[in-house]
Parts: sequence; C-alpha cells; structure tokens
Amino acid sequence: MPTAMPELRQNPATKEWVIIATERSRRPEELGSGPAQFAPNEHDHCPFCPGKEKATPPELLAYRAYGTEANSPGWWIRIIPNAFPALVPQGIPERFKVEDFFTYMEGLGDHEVIIESPEHQQTIALMEQKQVEEIFLAYRERYLALARDPRFEMVILFKNHGASAGTSLRHPHSQIIATPITPLHIRNRIESAMHYFDDSGTCVYCDMIAKEQKVGARIVSESNNFIVFEPFASRSPFETWVVPKKHASSFETITPENAKELAFVMRGVLRKIYCSLSNPDYNLVLRSAPVHEKNVEYYHWHIMILPRVSAVAGFELGSGIYINTVIPEEAAKFLRENTD
Amino acid sequence: MPTAMPELRQNPATKEWVIIATERSRRPEELGSGPAQFAPNEHDHCPFCPGKEKATPPELLAYRAYGTEANSPGWWIRIIPNAFPALVPQGIPERFKVEDFFTYMEGLGDHEVIIESPEHQQTIALMEQKQVEEIFLAYRERYLALARDPRFEMVILFKNHGASAGTSLRHPHSQIIATPITPLHIRNRIESAMHYFDDSGTCVYCDMIAKEQKVGARIVSESNNFIVFEPFASRSPFETWVVPKKHASSFETITPENAKELAFVMRGVLRKIYCSLSNPDYNLVLRSAPVHEKNVEYYHWHIMILPRVSAVAGFELGSGIYINTVIPEEAAKFLRENTD
Repeated sequence: MPTAMPELRQNPATKEWVIIATERSRRPEELGSGPAQFAPNEHDHCPFCPGKEKATPPELLAYRAYGTEANSPGWWIRIIPNAFPALVPQGIPERFKVEDFFTYMEGLGDHEVIIESPEHQQTIALMEQKQVEEIFLAYRERYLALARDPRFEMVILFKNHGASAGTSLRHPHSQIIATPITPLHIRNRIESAMHYFDDSGTCVYCDMIAKEQKVGARIVSESNNFIVFEPFASRSPFETWVVPKKHASSFETITPENAKELAFVMRGVLRKIYCSLSNPDYNLVLRSAPVHEKNVEYYHWHIMILPRVSAVAGFELGSGIYINTVIPEEAAKFLRENTD
Repeated sequence: MPTAMPELRQNPATKEWVIIATERSRRPEELGSGPAQFAPNEHDHCPFCPGKEKATPPELLAYRAYGTEANSPGWWIRIIPNAFPALVPQGIPERFKVEDFFTYMEGLGDHEVIIESPEHQQTIALMEQKQVEEIFLAYRERYLALARDPRFEMVILFKNHGASAGTSLRHPHSQIIATPITPLHIRNRIESAMHYFDDSGTCVYCDMIAKEQKVGARIVSESNNFIVFEPFASRSPFETWVVPKKHASSFETITPENAKELAFVMRGVLRKIYCSLSNPDYNLVLRSAPVHEKNVEYYHWHIMILPRVSAVAGFELGSGIYINTVIPEEAAKFLRENTD
C-alpha cells in the first residue's frame, strides 16, 4: 500500500502550522461521528500488550529482562515508532512556496510511542514507584536521542489519558513528536518570557515559583527539586503545573537522579488527581525550550497536566480565552488535602 | 443565593487570559465525567422552547409577531442574557495586581444567547432562507449594540452545534460574549496581519482571496460579495472560511443587505457540510477586529466553521499544531460537488 507522505503547511494570515497526514485518517463514514471511542473488545486486539510485539513497528528501545529478545515479551517499557505517524524521519527541513504565497514543508520529524507498562489496565497513578521511574528515564533517553538530530527544532512529549483526551487505545502509553519547526504557539510563549527577561533581568517562571511559595494557597506539593501548583490563571479546573525549582530551560539537561525524583512527584500528583476526580481523562504535556535553545536564561521547562473535565467550544476556539469553573486556590486545597 | 462574580486572570508567563466563572460549574461529582451529554428527556425541559420564556432571563430583543408580548410566545428569533454568564455587564475595565505579579480584572463583559428558531429540532442547514436572514440580521443588531459600549474591546460571536462541540442544549442557538480585553490569541493573529501589511502594503486576507481564486482547488462557493474556501493550512478536516471579498476589518460595518447575502452563503455551506458529513458537530466563530480598531487596513473579518470530526489532544494542546487527516483540496472538491 503506497504511503502518502505527511506535509507541514503554514497559514499565511495566522502563521500557524498544521500537519496534513492522510494516513492517520479514519474511514470517511466515521468522520461525522466525533471523537474515537474505545471498542468494547479493545483488550483482545491491543497491539501494545505483551505477545503482540509483531503487530507494531520494530522497537526503538526497550527495558526488558536479561536474555529476552527484541520484539518479544519480557519488557517493562517499550518504545516503538507510531504505526500512523504524524511526521516521518525523512526529508529536509526546507520551506517551499506555492503561488509565491503559501508555505509548506515535507512532513519531516519523528513520532514515537512509549508503552509505559506491559499491563493493559495500568495507569501511572496506580503503578509502583519503580515503574514510574523507568518511564521517566525512558522519556529522558528518547528526548536526548531526538534532540541530537540537527533537523529537528522541537521535541514534544505528551500523554492522552482517556477517550475524551483523544486516545483510542487504553493501554498506558505516551508519545513523542519531533518537529522541524518551532510552532507559533510555542514561539509566542517563549517570546513573552524573553520580553519579561529583557525587562526584569529574571526568568518569569523562577519569579512565579517564588510568588507561589509566598502565597502558598495554590501549591499542591513540593519536593527538593520540584514544585507542583495550580497556576493563578488555570485554564480549566485542576490544571496543574510541575516545575523544576532550579532554573533550566530544557528537559534535556535533567539528570537521571532528578528524573527519578520527578517520577515520584508526578506519580504523587497524578494519584491525587485520580482519587479526587475519579480517574478523569487528562492530557499531559512537557513544555521544553526548542532543542537549539537548550540553555537560555529566559525560558524554564515544566509539565502541564490538564484534566478534561470541561469542553473546549466555540468561545475558546475563537478567543483563546478559557472559561474555568473552579477557583485555582480551591482546586489546590482539594488536591493538597487528598492524602490517599 | 449569592452570586460569585466572574473574574479575568492573566498568566504572567504566557500572557493568556482566562475567565474564572464558578457559577457555570457543573456539580463536583459530575466533574470527572467529561463533556456534557444531552439528557434523554432534554426536549421536555428545554428553556429555549416557546412557552418557556419565563424560565430564562428577560429578553433583550425579539423578532416577534405584531401584538405579541415580550417574554411570551410569538417570536421567531429571541435574544436573552445567558443564565450562567461567563462575564457580566458590571464593573470597570481596570487591571489589578496581586503580589505585584499576578494580573486580574473584574469579570466585566456581556454574554448573550441568540435563540435561532422556535423549533427545538431545527438547524441552520435545514431552515428556510428567510429565517437564516433574520438570524444574521439579529447577529448584526446585537454586534452593533455591544460594540457601542466603550468598556468592551472585543465582541465574539460563536455557535456550538452538537454535544462534542460543547453545547448542552440542542435547541438551535448561538452566543455572543463581549470582553474588556483583546485576548492574546486574537492580538497575535492581528499582529501577524499587521506585519504583513507593513511589509507588503496589502491585506493578507485580500491577497489570500486573490490567490485562492487563482488556484481554484480549495474554493467551495462564491457569491457577489463572499467567498467560501478550505484554507491551504486547514487545521482539521473540512475547516471552512467564509470571507467578504471587499476589504472590511469589522463585522460592524456590514450592511443589512450584505448580512442577508451572508445568510444565503452560510446556509448553503452549512447545508453542504450537513449533507456531506451527516450532520457533524461543529463550531462556528466570527473573527472580527477589536471594536476600537474597526476600520483598519491590515485586518479582514471572516467566519470560521470547524467541524468536530477529530479530537484535540495533547500534541495540539502542547504545540498548537493541529493534525489534519484530510487534504483541504479534497475536502473542497467534496463540498463543491455536493449540490444537495
């Protein structure tokens, strides 16, 4: 079956990039039916379960028992190329023009899946601490590998938990996409922090940590090196940020030791969210600097957890303003007091 | 019952504004359950149906039969304040600071509902032309009224069609929210067009229309004064833009005659989408300039229709890059050839 190569296109008016990836399409008759739902018999057909290794592209990396063979059972973390990639590791990072007006690029990049456990029904909130540490060490390993490719500008690590968060496979997994561009959305965020730095001589995220510590009311938890809080302007109920206390612009510079501490903190907060909101669907995104700006003074990497407890509708799409129905201070109190 | 006033808060790092409106909250035990679904017996309890006028706040405007009384049946279009407003028409458009770092404002603004028909099961795609004209005349009338209030910066008109597009009431309606700020998302879009204008001396949207007409492949339909096309970088399958051909930065300047022509064009394209994709859920957004920039050379108002046929997940949230699985040229051909 010939594969239609993905393409990146930029809107000339808004400067936003999109990926056109027709291989990822659902069948046309399904297009009207809204977001994907889990199939009732999904467990039997799960390509991420042990024993189904041949149903996926060959693994890029696996943490597995000594003596077991690649692409066979025995692993506890397994990383594979996405079978329906949004971007592919072929092509050149060059811009082309149509009609001297519309900009496009080849769909160059990378799209990987991190299978977080052999157990189909597992989730980070309920895993053993050791397993979560391995997940974060795997995140680090793949982030470092992709950041080394000079054709890529961004490495975006994310997780969709639950059908309304956009996943169609329940088996616990996260994804990494490397892009050959810095998307507008991220550039705007970095530019804002850069202006703040130019004005004040300080990192806005470092200042935010100090202010949050002073106020206290929005803090969920703290460890030696990480702080967890509900942002002052949380976009939706229980939006949660996990931020390293020491200034660092890129996830690339995290030590294995700190990756394990981060795993401890993340498991703790995901557990609080799991228990407080009865296992809500959520998205998790690692916001790191572009890979060629990995040691800058003005940006500060962090993780955003966004429970999907309210719908994004026309107003949010049109204005970029989110309507949050829960006061962040109350959400923080609720999570802080959940000691399950 | 005392009403907690809504509040606008800005994230100091990203500069994004959010609305904190606790009155709109669903009950806490419902928070984990994802987006709202239509209740099975929603028709019986619909506050937008004729005879239920006392179940809503008093009407702001109605197009109704001669001699019928306000807030009683006899109307064919009815506009009311939203019973659970995101913003309220009280307060001053002033910024305040917490800890000399976090910015907030009173939740000043307006939030109205335009009930588009007395018929609960109707939808614009299937209405008589005359009814759709009245809807667009009502849009114009309320847009003009809100744009006159000097405390407001933006008037955002939008429509959520279907549960996955974020509505919880099936009865056909759209909404208008006036905000006391220009949100970052909109400011970025305007700034991009402004830079284009400064470089080229032309409006990027005017140039886009000319290029789309030259290429032809992405055009869905045209009338004397409007063009309908799938943008080159459509963010999701069947994203559709409706753009006035003659330069105009604000919807505020549309004539009643052109509002009727727009109604004709909009009904046509919504009908094509209804038939082609079997009545998909969609969002519709009017993108107009801030009300105090209503006659500028660099911006050009338009309507975006975004069918909700794919989920927005972690990658889109993290990068702002949307993954589209349908080539815009093919979507345009599909809609163009649907002559139902």
